[in-house]
Amino acid sequence: MGLKVYGVPMSACTARVLACLHEKGLEFEFVPVNFFGGEHKQPPFLEKNPFGQIPVLEDGDLTLFESRAITGYIADKFKDTGCDLIRHGDCNKAAVVRVWVEVEAQQYNPAIRPILYQCFVVPLIGKTSDQKIIDESLEKLGNVLDVYEARLSKTKYLAGDHFTLADLNHLSYTFYFMKTPYASLIESRPHVKAWWEDISSRPAFVKVSVNMKFEAN
Amino acid sequence: MGLKVYGVPMSACTARVLACLHEKGLEFEFVPVNFFGGEHKQPPFLEKNPFGQIPVLEDGDLTLFESRAITGYIADKFKDTGCDLIRHGDCNKAAVVRVWVEVEAQQYNPAIRPILYQCFVVPLIGKTSDQKIIDESLEKLGNVLDVYEARLSKTKYLAGDHFTLADLNHLSYTFYFMKTPYASLIESRPHVKAWWEDISSRPAFVKVSVNMKFEAN
Repeated sequence: MGLKVYGVPMSACTARVLACLHEKGLEFEFVPVNFFGGEHKQPPFLEKNPFGQIPVLEDGDLTLFESRAITGYIADKFKDTGCDLIRHGDCNKAAVVRVWVEVEAQQYNPAIRPILYQCFVVPLIGKTSDQKIIDESLEKLGNVLDVYEARLSKTKYLAGDHFTLADLNHLSYTFYFMKTPYASLIESRPHVKAWWEDISSRPAFVKVSVNMKFEAN
Repeated sequence: MGLKVYGVPMSACTARVLACLHEKGLEFEFVPVNFFGGEHKQPPFLEKNPFGQIPVLEDGDLTLFESRAITGYIADKFKDTGCDLIRHGDCNKAAVVRVWVEVEAQQYNPAIRPILYQCFVVPLIGKTSDQKIIDESLEKLGNVLDVYEARLSKTKYLAGDHFTLADLNHLSYTFYFMKTPYASLIESRPHVKAWWEDISSRPAFVKVSVNMKFEAN
């Protein structure tokens, strides 16, 4: 009746959940999904997540999907264990975490995701990347990072002076982004760069990122 | 020191927050933003939201942005007032609400938003809608709605047998979608149609939707 994660180590959304579990120091079972065999699109897995996506978390008889819902659930259920990811003792500070969690989901993710798709997934399926999509997304991402640079010149982390879920949810996509030819978008902004170096070197994420290798199986 | 909402009645994201405040029966002050004059892109407003978007909620000296962060904050802070939008008394039911809130944000919104942009915003700025974008988004939205149809054949609302934040966050975009030539995507799926008729007729949303008219000022 423990925690069970279904996913693939190279998947950024799986890595988001694993990083959260490690921040909390929780024991869990990892169940690899045969992603390249399409296991996640077959009926047994579709009963866990009808959208046919990884990861899935099982906690006893509770089945959850959507990586951000899962990290939010873990951060809330285990709020007194390990790193406090939601500032649960202070209603106003918790509200600020909530805002920057949504900024990742609604501003950062829509800008960075198409770049990673074009740089990693498209070549993997034997197609040619669309530079127009990359360029448009880089412009959007640059605008978002300008806001981050101003924010991080005032507070050490996005939601204030403590590492929270808002920072954690950025880790896995940014990790892959730093392997593209466009890493200068992060490196050229000194506060964003310092933030990235800080959060990506946290032991919980290092445990996860050593297994993040984007390749076909 | 009460609640203050900065926005525009026609804005779907503003309407999401207003619907939530009405479900809770909360008093608040509405501060109209001169959207067509670009007030939200000017420094005084950028201090409230550095991304230059509406709505913004002020609660005393706390300033919040991102509509889903705001509705989550209201649902949590006022959990014992009005409709229980997060099933806070039951950890497992609350987790399911969390999942379907993320489904709206990560599956439904990315599919429906480009359709509304092409149908309403593009003509407003004197340009021609891109039918290819509309068609691709309709296909994605249809796939999402197939999952909703199956889900809503088992439970009355997305996160179970009670109306929650997961349903509420869908209201404003779907309201505008029903005014496009593509409303049959909802109407052709009987459980989705019944769900839509139910949630859109809630008194809290009717109060908001009477002011949702998409037009230049």
